[in-house]
Amino acid sequence: MDRLIDAIKAKNNPSVVGLDPKPALLPKQLIDHAREATVSESEMGNPMEAEAAWSINFAAMYLRFNTTVIDAVKDIVPAVKPQIAMYEALGEAGLWMYARTCKYAQDNGLYVLGDVKRGDIGSTAEAYAHHLSGFPLRFSDVASADEVENVQRNAAALAADVEDYDENGDEFQFGSEWYEDAVTVNPYLGTDGITPFIDAAKGNDKDVFILVRTSNPSSSEIQELELRDGGRVYEHVADLVERWGADTIGDHGYSRAGAVVGATHPEEGARLRERMPHTFFLVPGYGAQGGTAADVARMFDANGSGAIVNSSRGIIGAWRKHPDYGEDLDLDEALQIVGESAREAAERMRDDLDSALRH
Amino acid sequence: MDRLIDAIKAKNNPSVVGLDPKPALLPKQLIDHAREATVSESEMGNPMEAEAAWSINFAAMYLRFNTTVIDAVKDIVPAVKPQIAMYEALGEAGLWMYARTCKYAQDNGLYVLGDVKRGDIGSTAEAYAHHLSGFPLRFSDVASADEVENVQRNAAALAADVEDYDENGDEFQFGSEWYEDAVTVNPYLGTDGITPFIDAAKGNDKDVFILVRTSNPSSSEIQELELRDGGRVYEHVADLVERWGADTIGDHGYSRAGAVVGATHPEEGARLRERMPHTFFLVPGYGAQGGTAADVARMFDANGSGAIVNSSRGIIGAWRKHPDYGEDLDLDEALQIVGESAREAAERMRDDLDSALRH
Repeated sequence: MDRLIDAIKAKNNPSVVGLDPKPALLPKQLIDHAREATVSESEMGNPMEAEAAWSINFAAMYLRFNTTVIDAVKDIVPAVKPQIAMYEALGEAGLWMYARTCKYAQDNGLYVLGDVKRGDIGSTAEAYAHHLSGFPLRFSDVASADEVENVQRNAAALAADVEDYDENGDEFQFGSEWYEDAVTVNPYLGTDGITPFIDAAKGNDKDVFILVRTSNPSSSEIQELELRDGGRVYEHVADLVERWGADTIGDHGYSRAGAVVGATHPEEGARLRERMPHTFFLVPGYGAQGGTAADVARMFDANGSGAIVNSSRGIIGAWRKHPDYGEDLDLDEALQIVGESAREAAERMRDDLDSALRH
Repeated sequence: MDRLIDAIKAKNNPSVVGLDPKPALLPKQLIDHAREATVSESEMGNPMEAEAAWSINFAAMYLRFNTTVIDAVKDIVPAVKPQIAMYEALGEAGLWMYARTCKYAQDNGLYVLGDVKRGDIGSTAEAYAHHLSGFPLRFSDVASADEVENVQRNAAALAADVEDYDENGDEFQFGSEWYEDAVTVNPYLGTDGITPFIDAAKGNDKDVFILVRTSNPSSSEIQELELRDGGRVYEHVADLVERWGADTIGDHGYSRAGAVVGATHPEEGARLRERMPHTFFLVPGYGAQGGTAADVARMFDANGSGAIVNSSRGIIGAWRKHPDYGEDLDLDEALQIVGESAREAAERMRDDLDSALRH
């Protein structure tokens, strides 16, 4: 967890921007742009069927939206948290843009917290843990050194000729892997589902955040159940998380096994803060879900560390309340407002947290 | 759940083949083939870097492996269960092959149970539920009828000229969506995380399987906790599942909300069978994990229905024990043995279950 804590200190801002695009959060200009691209590519000879071509162009707008937000906030926030569900909704083209969003954020110096909430067992959990450890079998594992060198030489020689750049100015790449610094994991399956992630985190200087007490109303149905020997299910899970992280405690006193603790449960969060002295918290539920800065301040330790607070819609959707936004703007003007609004909202959140943590 | 139950009756076989490829389960011939393809594509002008090009070729071998297994068993099994973790391990190229595996299985008349074990809340759960409901915003939603028609006409006109077919004989397509008839879901977040899946299932004649009592050893850490008011956590979850499915009960008496109940807990499974009269079970843990046909027979109802039993490695990895397999075989010969072995193993499993259910 040291890399995340260092990034928070460097920007003096314990907040993370949730990159959770969905159709309703995209300015109409981006949707129009994807529609026009689908039509004009078809006229220029793209043989894809309409919905398949559209799915790629629409998914590319998620990336365009995200890079706009990242460019606008990258000097003031330490981390982003893309929610993979939003990209999975768009099929494989969406997941391609998820990976490219993560890569773009990392390339811009941000810590990337992949909100994947995976949970499975044994060899399946090991497979999911490749989010942290990378491709399970590399070309260099199966090819001779000469073969690898030849392919690389060919690729470099051809790169100069390739004009297939996309609108983000990147070379058009498919076949990349995952670019996360941490992922979220579900504990319902117990240790078998967690150990592969902890091992992958240890081996790759990465982290894991395990669901303990989520921010949604119905989380009480299972997490708050009272146990026969005292305590609640989520408290039992909290103790497991402390144990799962025990041999990965870093320079700042926190382990690689973090916990997800919702801002909507400030009393419980304050008690969990004491119960889990080596566990860093990821705190969702600030803002749109009702958690205040005073609520989340209780999830921090005495040094003002120990937690990072997420806001998604409050930042990436701030453009919707900007007085200058209108559907008559052109694409660049609309994206300008998306970026400005996100930055203003991120600054307000930083200052709001800073103020609460000083009290 | 009626479609699944009808498919089981039609083949008289309550088993599902887990399509969980991983590097160690692929014959060496497939890995060699992907290596050679990467080298030769590079020589023919593919400008991709070595590892990116490899990742696509290697992922394509997962599809090749799966289509071999599907072709071999499709007339004797009603369903397949691809485990998405195995494909996610390969990045977006892997997920592309996951979608194409599902599509291929559906096109061959199989019910596709996507083992995704997703679990999140509210709008995020809604996004994951697009596994069942499809793309959230279609070209036809944003384009004029003329635009849609023109793109389709161009695509059809160009289709004849396109020679970009892949080794499975399919037209090379990217940008497809999900092709699952059901998905697995994690209950830790409560009703908020389940309702969007149930709604999507209702709206699209699909189903959901919710984790109740998983087959792995450490599942006891949370699922078996004793509650203050009696019972265990998994029993409480079982009651929630019955409630979640209550208004979706089909012609065969089972709801669209199924339950995952591991074969490794036969006593608990038998009690859950009584406790959950309207809940169809997906039973993992048969074979490799130690569950016997007699164990899983207790998860069925008095009519021999009510459950479907999964086997993954026991079927797709059966080629490894085939006396005729050797690394000196060519690719087609190796795939022949993969298919034959899978079919023999699937037949043995069918007969094993049939025998246990008759007693």
